[in-house]
Amino acid sequence: MKYSSTFSSSPCLLFIFLMIFFNSATATRFNIPRLSPIGGTILQELSGTVLQSHHSEHYKTFYYKQTLDHFNYRPESYSTFRQRYVINFKYWGGANASAPIFAYLGAEAPLDGDITAIGFLTDNAARFNALLVYIEHRYYGKSIPFGSREEALKNASTLGYFNSAQAIADYAEILIHVKKKYQAEDSPVIVVGGSYGGMLASWFRLKYPHVALGALASSAPILYFDNITPQDGYFSIVTKDFREASETCYQTIRDSWSEIDKVASQLDGLSTLSKKFKTCNPLKTTSELKNYLENIYASAAQYNQPPRYPVTVVCGGIDGEAFGSDILSKIFAGVVAYRGNRSCYVNATTNLSETTVGWSWQTCSEMVIPIGIENNTMFQADPFVLSEFINKCRAIYGVSPRPHWVTTYYGGHDIKLILQRFGSNIIFSNGLRDPYSSGGVLENISDSIVAVHTVNGSHCLDILPANKSSDPDWLVKQRKIEVEIIEGWIAKYYADLKALNY
Amino acid sequence: MKYSSTFSSSPCLLFIFLMIFFNSATATRFNIPRLSPIGGTILQELSGTVLQSHHSEHYKTFYYKQTLDHFNYRPESYSTFRQRYVINFKYWGGANASAPIFAYLGAEAPLDGDITAIGFLTDNAARFNALLVYIEHRYYGKSIPFGSREEALKNASTLGYFNSAQAIADYAEILIHVKKKYQAEDSPVIVVGGSYGGMLASWFRLKYPHVALGALASSAPILYFDNITPQDGYFSIVTKDFREASETCYQTIRDSWSEIDKVASQLDGLSTLSKKFKTCNPLKTTSELKNYLENIYASAAQYNQPPRYPVTVVCGGIDGEAFGSDILSKIFAGVVAYRGNRSCYVNATTNLSETTVGWSWQTCSEMVIPIGIENNTMFQADPFVLSEFINKCRAIYGVSPRPHWVTTYYGGHDIKLILQRFGSNIIFSNGLRDPYSSGGVLENISDSIVAVHTVNGSHCLDILPANKSSDPDWLVKQRKIEVEIIEGWIAKYYADLKALNY
Repeated sequence: MKYSSTFSSSPCLLFIFLMIFFNSATATRFNIPRLSPIGGTILQELSGTVLQSHHSEHYKTFYYKQTLDHFNYRPESYSTFRQRYVINFKYWGGANASAPIFAYLGAEAPLDGDITAIGFLTDNAARFNALLVYIEHRYYGKSIPFGSREEALKNASTLGYFNSAQAIADYAEILIHVKKKYQAEDSPVIVVGGSYGGMLASWFRLKYPHVALGALASSAPILYFDNITPQDGYFSIVTKDFREASETCYQTIRDSWSEIDKVASQLDGLSTLSKKFKTCNPLKTTSELKNYLENIYASAAQYNQPPRYPVTVVCGGIDGEAFGSDILSKIFAGVVAYRGNRSCYVNATTNLSETTVGWSWQTCSEMVIPIGIENNTMFQADPFVLSEFINKCRAIYGVSPRPHWVTTYYGGHDIKLILQRFGSNIIFSNGLRDPYSSGGVLENISDSIVAVHTVNGSHCLDILPANKSSDPDWLVKQRKIEVEIIEGWIAKYYADLKALNY
Repeated sequence: MKYSSTFSSSPCLLFIFLMIFFNSATATRFNIPRLSPIGGTILQELSGTVLQSHHSEHYKTFYYKQTLDHFNYRPESYSTFRQRYVINFKYWGGANASAPIFAYLGAEAPLDGDITAIGFLTDNAARFNALLVYIEHRYYGKSIPFGSREEALKNASTLGYFNSAQAIADYAEILIHVKKKYQAEDSPVIVVGGSYGGMLASWFRLKYPHVALGALASSAPILYFDNITPQDGYFSIVTKDFREASETCYQTIRDSWSEIDKVASQLDGLSTLSKKFKTCNPLKTTSELKNYLENIYASAAQYNQPPRYPVTVVCGGIDGEAFGSDILSKIFAGVVAYRGNRSCYVNATTNLSETTVGWSWQTCSEMVIPIGIENNTMFQADPFVLSEFINKCRAIYGVSPRPHWVTTYYGGHDIKLILQRFGSNIIFSNGLRDPYSSGGVLENISDSIVAVHTVNGSHCLDILPANKSSDPDWLVKQRKIEVEIIEGWIAKYYADLKALNY
C-alpha cells in the first residue's frame, strides 16, 4: 500500500484520503469516507447553495469562454468550455482608484463552498477596497469541458487537458479579461489559494508576474515533489501532533496496528474486527480498517484547528476509555469521539465526490506527491514506491504519471538558491501542526518571498474566516502580518506606477 | 498586402520575407528569395556540413527522447521524438568546479549552421571554462516529430505541438537531463539566443529560473506583440537607416513605388518592368517586384553590419547610377549592387527553406508580430490589419492565430512596471539600426535586467563571431559589457552557493 499524493485537501476544507483508491488489495476501493471540515464554525459540505444564500446580492456569477488547450494549436485545442467565476463588487474602490483585485484561485473542488469558506477575501475586502474574484478550476463544478462531466472524465483522451499548467493559464486569461472589462488594467491583483490552490497561487505569481502582483499561498506543499521532502514528512508530523497531545494516546495508536493484525489472524478475525468497529459492511481486509483509521488521524492532525482541536478530541476518546480496556476498544472510542455517534463506521457506502474523482486523476498525472511511511512514526511502515504507483495509475487511466514534471516546470529543488535573486511578492503561510507543512516553505527566501508560519497552526487556517470570539492570538497575529505584507506590496506598486507616470 | 510577423530571422543569419506567402494577390506565393547572411565573414548557408568540419572533434551530437506534448496527458501526448543537441566539451572546467554551461537555444532553423555562427559561445568558452550546449528547436532540422517532416507539417493536427511554450519546455528537459548526466547540478546555465531565439532565451529565464541562471537575449523583439510597439516601428527604422546613409538614395526609393505603379499602368507595363528588372519570370503583379525590393531594403537594414554595411552597398548602387538616369534604373542598380551580377532577379524559383515553412506556421499560430507600414516611411502605406491576417492564416492552416497569447503567457505590456521588482539576470542586447530593435527592450528594467545597445549595431551582431581585424570598437565594447555582466551573475551565484553550503 502506498500513500502517494493521495491526500486531497480541497480549498482547505475537504480532506479526502484517496490512498484506498490506489490500494488494489482493498475491495472497496471507492468506498472512501469524505471528511467534513473540522471545526463547528466552518461551513459544512456545500453544494451550490451558497450563491443563493444571504450573500447572493453581492456576488455575481459569470462564465468565460475558455480555451480547452492553451499550449497546442490542433483544431481540437480550440474547443472552448464555459468556465465559472464569481465577482463580489461590494467593496471595490473602482478602476479610477486602481483599487486592488483579490483573486481566489479555485482548487480541486467546485467553487461554491469557497465563497464562504475563504474568509481572507471577505474579511479584508473593506480594508483594501478590493474587488473579489473567485475562479473555478477546470473540470470541477460548473467548469466542465466536453459538454458533460461524464464525457470530460471518460478517459485519458478527455482528461488529458486537466492539469495545473492549463489551469493557471485559464486564470491568466480570466484575470486579463476581468481587468479589461472593468478598465482595471492598473489595479494590482493579489492571488490567494490554499493547499493545492496555494501551490497554484505561488506558481501563478512565478509564471504570470504580469497578471498578479503577489500571491498568498496558504499551506502549499510545493516542496513535496521528487525527493525534495523526505517521504515520511507528512506522517512524522501526524505522529508528533498526537504525541504532543498525549503520550498515552500516541502509544495506544502505535500499538494498535499489530493488535489489528493479531486479531485478524485469529479464526473469524475480520468478523471480530467488524463487530468491534461497528463496520457498516463486513471487513474484507484489514487495510480497509487501517486506512480508515489512518485517514482519521491524518485528518485530525491536518485540520487540528481551534476551537475544537480534533487531535485532542480523538485522544480524549482514546485516553478516556476505562482503565484496563483493550487497545482496540480505546481506538474505537477515539473514532466515536471524532466522528460522533453513528449507526456504523469504517466502510459506509458514499458517493464519490468531485474532489475524490478529480484529484485521483491529478495525482495520477502530474501531482505525484510521494507520501510514504517509513519508521519513527506511530504507523506501520508503508513506503512510497514510485514504480508501483506508476503501475497502478497506468492500470486505472491507461497513461503514466510524469513524476518529475512539477519540478521541471515549476522548480522546487534548491529553492532558496534559485529564488533569493529571482521573483518577489509571495507569502508562504503554514501551520507547523499541519502535516503538509513538511513540504512547505518555512523560511524566508528573500525580502519579499517570505514564510509566515505559526507553531500551532493547521492546514490553511489563516485563510479561513476570522472568528473574533475564538481565534487565538497567534492566529490573529499571523493574519495581521500577512495583511501588512500585502499592503506593503500594493504601496510599492502604487509608488512605482506613479513614478513611471502610467 | 500585409507584413505582419512575416519577417523571419533564423539564428540571426537567415532572413526570410514571408510577406509574399500571405499575399494572395501574388501568384508566385512560394517563390521567395532566401537571403544569405550579410557580411563576408559570416557563414554562408550551411546544411549539416558544420559538424563534419574541422571543429567536429570537439562537438558531439546527442538525441534526447523528447515528449511531444508537455501540457497534456492524452495518450498521444506521450509520443516522443528524437531531439538533437550538440555539446562541445573542449573548454569545460567540469562539474567539480561547478563550471558554467552556456546553452544556445535553437530558433526557427536547423541547428547545423548555429554552431559556427553563434560566435558568442565559442569566443567566450575558454574565459568561462564553459560547457557549450546547442539545442535544436522542435520541428526543425533533425528534431522532427511524427517520424518525418512531411508528416509533421501535414496539417494543424500535427503542427499544433509546434510552439514556443512546448519548445522552451523541451529546453528545460534537456538542460536538466544534461546537468544530471554530467553531475553538473551546481553548474550555472546561461542561455543565449538571437532574434526569435533571443525571445526564447529571455522567456526561458523568466519561466524556468530554476534551470537557467541568466539569459543573453540578442535582438529579441519581445515587445512587438499586441499594440505594445507601433506597427510601423520596423519600417520606420529601415527608412531611417537608408536616409542616414544617403538622402538621395532614400528619396529615390521613396519615389520608386509610384513610378512602378505608373509604368505598370501603361500598355505592357508589367512586361516593361520585367525587362527593366531582368526578372527570372514575367511579373504577374507589381507586388512581386515591390515585395522583392522591400525585402532587399529590410534585409540590408536588419543586417547592416560591418565590414560590408549593406545599406551603404544598396545606396552606392542607387546613387552611383549615371546622372539623369531614370528612377527605376537607379533602383535596379541598387539591386545589382546588393545581390551581385546574376542571370536574373526578383522571382527566381527557389526551394522553400525549413525556416520559411516553419516560421510561416509559427507566425500564423502564436508569433503574431504586427508589422505594418503607415506613413512617414519610404514605403507605400500598407497597414497590418489583424482580421485580414487571421483570415489568411485560417485559409492556409484551417486554424486561427491567437494574437494575444504571447502577451498572456509571457507578458510584455508595462514591462518596466512588471519586471523592475520581479526576475533578474537578463541582458537584452540590440543594435539600433536593426529594424527589430523597435520591438526590443532598450532601457534597463532593473539592476540585473538590463539593456545593452549600440547606436550602429545590426540584428544579432553581438553574438556573431568576433573578428579582431574588422570589428569596430563599439562592438568590441558591447561584447565586453555583456561578458562582464554574465561574469557578475556567475560570481554572485557561486557566492550564494557557498553561503548556502550546498
